[in-house]
Amino acid sequence: MGLEIERKFLVLGDDWKQLAEPVFMRQGYLSSEAGRVVRVRVEGQSAMLTIKGKTIGISRGEWEYAIPLADAKELLDGVCQQPLIEKHRYRIAIDEVVWEVDEFFGDNAGLVVAEVELTSADQVFVKPSWLGEEVSHDYRYANANLFKHPFSRW
Amino acid sequence: MGLEIERKFLVLGDDWKQLAEPVFMRQGYLSSEAGRVVRVRVEGQSAMLTIKGKTIGISRGEWEYAIPLADAKELLDGVCQQPLIEKHRYRIAIDEVVWEVDEFFGDNAGLVVAEVELTSADQVFVKPSWLGEEVSHDYRYANANLFKHPFSRW
Repeated sequence: MGLEIERKFLVLGDDWKQLAEPVFMRQGYLSSEAGRVVRVRVEGQSAMLTIKGKTIGISRGEWEYAIPLADAKELLDGVCQQPLIEKHRYRIAIDEVVWEVDEFFGDNAGLVVAEVELTSADQVFVKPSWLGEEVSHDYRYANANLFKHPFSRW
Repeated sequence: MGLEIERKFLVLGDDWKQLAEPVFMRQGYLSSEAGRVVRVRVEGQSAMLTIKGKTIGISRGEWEYAIPLADAKELLDGVCQQPLIEKHRYRIAIDEVVWEVDEFFGDNAGLVVAEVELTSADQVFVKPSWLGEEVSHDYRYANANLFKHPFSRW
Protein backbone atom coordinates (compact mmCIF):
# COMPACT_ATOMS: atom_id res chain seq x y z
CA MET A 1 0.00 0.00 0.00
CA GLY A 2 1.10 3.52 -0.77
CA LEU A 3 -0.14 6.37 1.35
CA GLU A 4 -1.45 9.27 -0.70
CA ILE A 5 -1.22 12.71 0.92
CA GLU A 6 -2.69 15.31 -1.40
CA ARG A 7 -3.88 18.88 -1.36
CA LYS A 8 -6.15 20.24 -4.05
CA PHE A 9 -6.78 23.81 -5.18
CA LEU A 10 -8.80 25.67 -7.75
CA VAL A 11 -6.77 27.39 -10.48
CA LEU A 12 -6.91 31.04 -11.54
CA GLY A 13 -6.32 32.39 -15.07
CA ASP A 14 -4.22 30.42 -17.54
CA ASP A 15 -0.60 31.44 -16.88
CA TRP A 16 0.06 27.82 -15.83
CA LYS A 17 -0.69 26.57 -19.35
CA GLN A 18 2.65 27.63 -20.78
CA LEU A 19 4.59 25.75 -18.08
CA ALA A 20 4.08 22.20 -19.37
CA GLU A 21 2.80 20.07 -22.25
CA PRO A 22 -0.49 18.33 -21.48
CA VAL A 23 -1.07 14.59 -21.56
CA PHE A 24 -4.54 13.26 -22.31
CA MET A 25 -6.21 11.04 -19.69
CA ARG A 26 -9.37 8.98 -19.95
CA GLN A 27 -10.64 7.35 -16.79
CA GLY A 28 -13.64 5.60 -15.36
CA TYR A 29 -14.81 3.90 -12.18
CA LEU A 30 -15.70 0.29 -11.35
CA SER A 31 -16.60 1.57 -7.89
CA SER A 32 -17.02 5.22 -6.95
CA GLU A 33 -18.07 4.50 -3.37
CA ALA A 34 -16.08 6.68 -0.95
CA GLY A 35 -13.52 4.52 0.88
CA ARG A 36 -13.60 1.88 -1.82
CA VAL A 37 -12.85 3.59 -5.14
CA VAL A 38 -11.67 1.44 -8.07
CA ARG A 39 -10.42 3.47 -11.03
CA VAL A 40 -9.31 2.50 -14.55
CA ARG A 41 -7.11 5.10 -16.27
CA VAL A 42 -5.49 5.29 -19.69
CA GLU A 43 -2.69 7.81 -20.18
CA GLY A 44 -1.04 7.62 -23.60
CA GLN A 45 -0.11 3.97 -24.15
CA SER A 46 -0.16 2.96 -20.49
CA ALA A 47 -3.04 1.87 -18.29
CA MET A 48 -3.49 1.52 -14.55
CA LEU A 49 -5.99 0.00 -12.17
CA THR A 50 -6.04 1.97 -8.91
CA ILE A 51 -7.80 1.28 -5.62
CA LYS A 52 -8.27 4.10 -3.13
CA GLY A 53 -9.22 3.42 0.48
CA LYS A 54 -10.72 5.62 3.17
CA THR A 55 -9.63 9.24 3.38
CA ILE A 56 -8.33 10.14 6.83
CA GLY A 57 -7.62 13.88 6.95
CA ILE A 58 -5.80 14.52 3.67
CA SER A 59 -4.23 11.05 3.32
CA ARG A 60 -5.53 7.73 2.09
CA GLY A 61 -4.31 4.26 1.15
CA GLU A 62 -3.70 3.62 -2.52
CA TRP A 63 -2.91 0.40 -4.38
CA GLU A 64 -1.96 0.66 -8.05
CA TYR A 65 -1.40 -1.99 -10.76
CA ALA A 66 -0.35 -1.66 -14.40
CA ILE A 67 -2.76 -3.53 -16.66
CA PRO A 68 -2.72 -4.20 -20.43
CA LEU A 69 -3.98 -1.27 -22.50
CA ALA A 70 -6.48 -3.51 -24.33
CA ASP A 71 -7.99 -4.62 -20.99
CA ALA A 72 -8.30 -1.00 -19.87
CA LYS A 73 -10.16 -0.04 -23.05
CA GLU A 74 -12.58 -2.97 -22.63
CA LEU A 75 -13.18 -2.01 -18.99
CA LEU A 76 -13.63 1.71 -19.76
CA ASP A 77 -16.06 1.16 -22.63
CA GLY A 78 -17.92 -1.91 -21.39
CA VAL A 79 -17.78 -2.17 -17.60
CA CYS A 80 -17.06 1.20 -15.93
CA GLN A 81 -19.79 3.56 -14.80
CA GLN A 82 -20.59 6.14 -17.49
CA PRO A 83 -19.81 8.81 -18.53
CA LEU A 84 -16.02 8.63 -18.38
CA ILE A 85 -13.81 11.50 -17.25
CA GLU A 86 -11.60 13.06 -19.91
CA LYS A 87 -8.99 15.67 -19.08
CA HIS A 88 -5.64 17.15 -19.94
CA ARG A 89 -3.04 16.89 -17.19
CA TYR A 90 -0.16 19.39 -16.99
CA ARG A 91 2.69 18.31 -14.69
CA ILE A 92 4.43 21.44 -13.45
CA ALA A 93 7.52 21.17 -11.22
CA ILE A 94 7.99 24.15 -8.87
CA ASP A 95 10.76 23.92 -6.28
CA GLU A 96 10.40 20.64 -4.38
CA VAL A 97 6.96 19.63 -5.61
CA VAL A 98 5.15 18.70 -8.82
CA TRP A 99 1.76 20.28 -9.45
CA GLU A 100 -0.71 18.23 -11.44
CA VAL A 101 -3.07 20.66 -13.11
CA ASP A 102 -6.16 18.97 -14.59
CA GLU A 103 -8.23 20.72 -17.24
CA PHE A 104 -11.50 18.84 -17.65
CA PHE A 105 -13.52 18.28 -20.82
CA GLY A 106 -17.10 17.28 -21.57
CA ASP A 107 -19.65 18.03 -18.87
CA ASN A 108 -16.83 19.22 -16.61
CA ALA A 109 -15.45 21.76 -19.11
CA GLY A 110 -14.48 25.00 -17.38
CA LEU A 111 -13.15 23.22 -14.32
CA VAL A 112 -9.40 23.35 -13.67
CA VAL A 113 -7.88 22.00 -10.45
CA ALA A 114 -4.30 21.65 -9.23
CA GLU A 115 -3.14 18.84 -6.95
CA VAL A 116 0.12 18.39 -5.14
CA GLU A 117 1.25 15.14 -3.56
CA LEU A 118 3.15 15.62 -0.32
CA THR A 119 5.46 13.35 1.66
CA SER A 120 3.95 14.44 4.98
CA ALA A 121 0.78 16.24 5.97
CA ASP A 122 2.70 19.25 7.31
CA GLN A 123 5.12 19.61 4.37
CA VAL A 124 5.71 23.28 3.49
CA PHE A 125 5.50 24.22 -0.20
CA VAL A 126 5.48 27.35 -2.35
CA LYS A 127 2.06 28.34 -3.70
CA PRO A 128 2.22 29.49 -7.32
CA SER A 129 0.42 32.77 -8.12
CA TRP A 130 -2.24 30.95 -10.19
CA LEU A 131 -3.43 28.93 -7.19
CA GLY A 132 -6.93 29.73 -5.93
CA GLU A 133 -9.09 28.42 -3.09
CA GLU A 134 -8.16 25.12 -1.44
CA VAL A 135 -10.75 22.35 -2.04
CA SER A 136 -8.92 19.36 -0.47
CA HIS A 137 -11.91 18.53 1.71
CA ASP A 138 -14.65 19.25 -0.82
CA TYR A 139 -15.89 15.91 -2.20
CA ARG A 140 -17.60 17.67 -5.13
CA TYR A 141 -14.17 18.00 -6.74
CA ALA A 142 -13.29 14.29 -6.45
CA ASN A 143 -13.06 12.72 -9.91
CA ALA A 144 -15.18 9.83 -8.56
CA ASN A 145 -17.91 12.42 -7.98
CA LEU A 146 -17.41 14.61 -11.07
CA PHE A 147 -18.62 12.01 -13.57
CA LYS A 148 -21.92 11.67 -11.66
CA HIS A 149 -22.33 15.34 -10.72
CA PRO A 150 -20.44 17.27 -13.41
CA PHE A 151 -19.28 20.84 -12.89
CA SER A 152 -21.57 22.20 -15.63
CA ARG A 153 -24.64 21.20 -13.57
CA TRP A 154 -23.56 22.62 -10.20
CA MET B 1 -10.73 -10.25 -21.46
CA GLY B 2 -11.57 -13.86 -20.78
CA LEU B 3 -15.12 -15.08 -21.28
CA GLU B 4 -16.42 -17.07 -18.35
CA ILE B 5 -19.09 -19.71 -19.13
CA GLU B 6 -20.19 -21.40 -15.94
CA ARG B 7 -22.97 -23.62 -14.63
CA LYS B 8 -23.67 -23.92 -10.95
CA PHE B 9 -25.45 -26.66 -8.99
CA LEU B 10 -26.36 -27.49 -5.43
CA VAL B 11 -24.57 -30.53 -3.98
CA LEU B 12 -26.12 -33.59 -2.33
CA GLY B 13 -24.58 -35.66 0.51
CA ASP B 14 -20.82 -35.72 1.02
CA ASP B 15 -19.49 -38.45 -1.29
CA TRP B 16 -17.64 -35.69 -3.21
CA LYS B 17 -15.49 -34.91 -0.15
CA GLN B 18 -13.20 -37.91 -0.59
CA LEU B 19 -12.40 -37.00 -4.21
CA ALA B 20 -10.02 -34.08 -3.56
CA GLU B 21 -8.07 -32.17 -0.93
CA PRO B 22 -9.58 -28.79 -0.10
CA VAL B 23 -7.81 -25.44 -0.44
CA PHE B 24 -8.84 -22.56 1.79
CA MET B 25 -10.06 -19.35 0.13
CA ARG B 26 -10.74 -15.97 1.65
CA GLN B 27 -12.35 -13.36 -0.55
CA GLY B 28 -14.03 -10.00 -0.43
CA TYR B 29 -15.55 -7.40 -2.72
CA LEU B 30 -14.54 -3.84 -3.60
CA SER B 31 -17.70 -3.72 -5.70
CA SER B 32 -20.51 -6.25 -5.57
CA GLU B 33 -22.70 -4.41 -8.05
CA ALA B 34 -24.00 -6.83 -10.72
CA GLY B 35 -22.18 -6.19 -14.01
CA ARG B 36 -19.27 -4.51 -12.23
CA VAL B 37 -17.97 -6.94 -9.60
CA VAL B 38 -14.43 -6.40 -8.24
CA ARG B 39 -13.18 -9.30 -6.11
CA VAL B 40 -10.02 -9.78 -4.03
CA ARG B 41 -9.17 -13.44 -3.32
CA VAL B 42 -6.40 -15.12 -1.37
CA GLU B 43 -5.78 -18.83 -2.01
CA GLY B 44 -2.79 -20.22 -0.15
CA GLN B 45 0.13 -17.90 -0.88
CA SER B 46 -1.33 -16.38 -4.04
CA ALA B 47 -3.72 -13.49 -4.48
CA MET B 48 -5.84 -12.26 -7.38
CA LEU B 49 -7.85 -9.18 -8.24
CA THR B 50 -10.74 -10.15 -10.52
CA ILE B 51 -13.24 -7.98 -12.39
CA LYS B 52 -16.47 -9.53 -13.66
CA GLY B 53 -18.65 -7.78 -16.21
CA LYS B 54 -22.28 -8.21 -17.19
CA THR B 55 -23.73 -11.71 -17.28
CA ILE B 56 -25.30 -12.53 -20.64
CA GLY B 57 -27.02 -15.92 -20.41
CA ILE B 58 -24.44 -18.07 -18.58
CA SER B 59 -21.32 -16.21 -19.82
CA ARG B 60 -19.62 -13.00 -18.73
CA GLY B 61 -16.40 -11.06 -19.28
CA GLU B 62 -13.67 -11.60 -16.72
CA TRP B 63 -10.36 -9.78 -16.21
CA GLU B 64 -7.91 -11.20 -13.68
CA TYR B 65 -4.63 -9.90 -12.26
CA ALA B 66 -2.18 -11.43 -9.80
CA ILE B 67 -1.40 -8.98 -6.98
CA PRO B 68 1.04 -9.17 -4.05
CA LEU B 69 -0.26 -11.22 -1.12
CA ALA B 70 0.43 -8.35 1.31
CA ASP B 71 -1.72 -5.99 -0.80
CA ALA B 72 -4.56 -8.52 -0.87
CA LYS B 73 -4.51 -8.85 2.91
CA GLU B 74 -4.63 -5.06 3.33
CA LEU B 75 -7.51 -4.82 0.86
CA LEU B 76 -9.47 -7.70 2.43
CA ASP B 77 -9.11 -6.45 6.00
CA GLY B 78 -9.24 -2.69 5.42
CA VAL B 79 -11.07 -1.84 2.19
CA CYS B 80 -13.41 -4.66 1.07
CA GLN B 81 -17.06 -4.82 2.07
CA GLN B 82 -17.53 -6.94 5.20
CA PRO B 83 -17.98 -9.72 6.13
CA LEU B 84 -15.57 -11.67 3.92
CA ILE B 85 -16.42 -15.01 2.34
CA GLU B 86 -14.44 -18.00 3.61
CA LYS B 87 -14.71 -21.41 2.03
CA HIS B 88 -12.98 -24.66 1.20
CA ARG B 89 -12.71 -25.40 -2.50
CA TYR B 90 -12.41 -28.98 -3.74
CA ARG B 91 -11.28 -29.30 -7.38
CA ILE B 92 -12.63 -32.60 -8.74
CA ALA B 93 -11.76 -33.70 -12.29
CA ILE B 94 -14.39 -35.94 -13.89
CA ASP B 95 -13.93 -36.84 -17.55
CA GLU B 96 -13.36 -33.64 -19.53
CA VAL B 97 -14.29 -31.11 -16.87
CA VAL B 98 -13.16 -29.91 -13.44
CA TRP B 99 -15.81 -29.40 -10.79
CA GLU B 100 -15.13 -26.72 -8.22
CA VAL B 101 -17.06 -27.66 -5.11
CA ASP B 102 -17.24 -24.82 -2.56
CA GLU B 103 -18.06 -25.57 1.07
CA PHE B 104 -18.85 -22.29 2.82
CA PHE B 105 -18.07 -21.29 6.40
CA GLY B 106 -19.33 -18.59 8.76
CA ASP B 107 -22.83 -17.28 8.08
CA ASN B 108 -22.95 -19.40 4.93
CA ALA B 109 -22.14 -22.68 6.71
CA GLY B 110 -24.28 -25.52 5.40
CA LEU B 111 -24.13 -24.27 1.83
CA VAL B 112 -22.21 -26.37 -0.71
CA VAL B 113 -22.26 -25.55 -4.42
CA ALA B 114 -20.48 -27.05 -7.43
CA GLU B 115 -19.43 -25.02 -10.45
CA VAL B 116 -18.11 -26.15 -13.79
CA GLU B 117 -16.45 -23.88 -16.32
CA LEU B 118 -17.28 -24.76 -19.91
CA THR B 119 -15.64 -23.87 -23.21
CA SER B 120 -19.01 -23.29 -24.91
CA ALA B 121 -22.54 -22.77 -23.65
CA ASP B 122 -23.75 -26.03 -25.22
CA GLN B 123 -20.84 -28.21 -24.04
CA VAL B 124 -22.04 -31.67 -22.94
CA PHE B 125 -20.70 -32.99 -19.62
CA VAL B 126 -21.31 -35.91 -17.26
CA LYS B 127 -23.26 -35.02 -14.11
CA PRO B 128 -21.85 -36.71 -11.01
CA SER B 129 -24.37 -38.49 -8.75
CA TRP B 130 -23.89 -35.89 -5.99
CA LEU B 131 -25.13 -33.04 -8.17
CA GLY B 132 -28.45 -31.48 -7.14
CA GLU B 133 -30.60 -28.71 -8.55
CA GLU B 134 -29.07 -26.25 -11.05
CA VAL B 135 -28.81 -22.67 -9.70
CA SER B 136 -26.84 -21.00 -12.55
CA HIS B 137 -29.44 -18.26 -12.89
CA ASP B 138 -30.19 -17.77 -9.20
CA TYR B 139 -28.34 -14.64 -8.03
CA ARG B 140 -28.81 -15.64 -4.37
CA TYR B 141 -25.96 -18.12 -4.83
CA ALA B 142 -23.51 -15.56 -6.26
CA ASN B 143 -20.60 -15.05 -3.85
CA ALA B 144 -21.06 -11.30 -4.36
CA ASN B 145 -24.54 -11.76 -2.86
CA LEU B 146 -23.75 -14.36 -0.18
CA PHE B 147 -21.72 -12.03 2.04
CA LYS B 148 -24.62 -9.56 2.19
CA HIS B 149 -27.43 -12.12 2.34
CA PRO B 150 -25.86 -15.22 3.88
CA PHE B 151 -27.40 -18.67 3.50
CA SER B 152 -28.12 -18.97 7.25
CA ARG B 153 -30.60 -16.08 7.03
CA TRP B 154 -32.55 -17.18 3.95
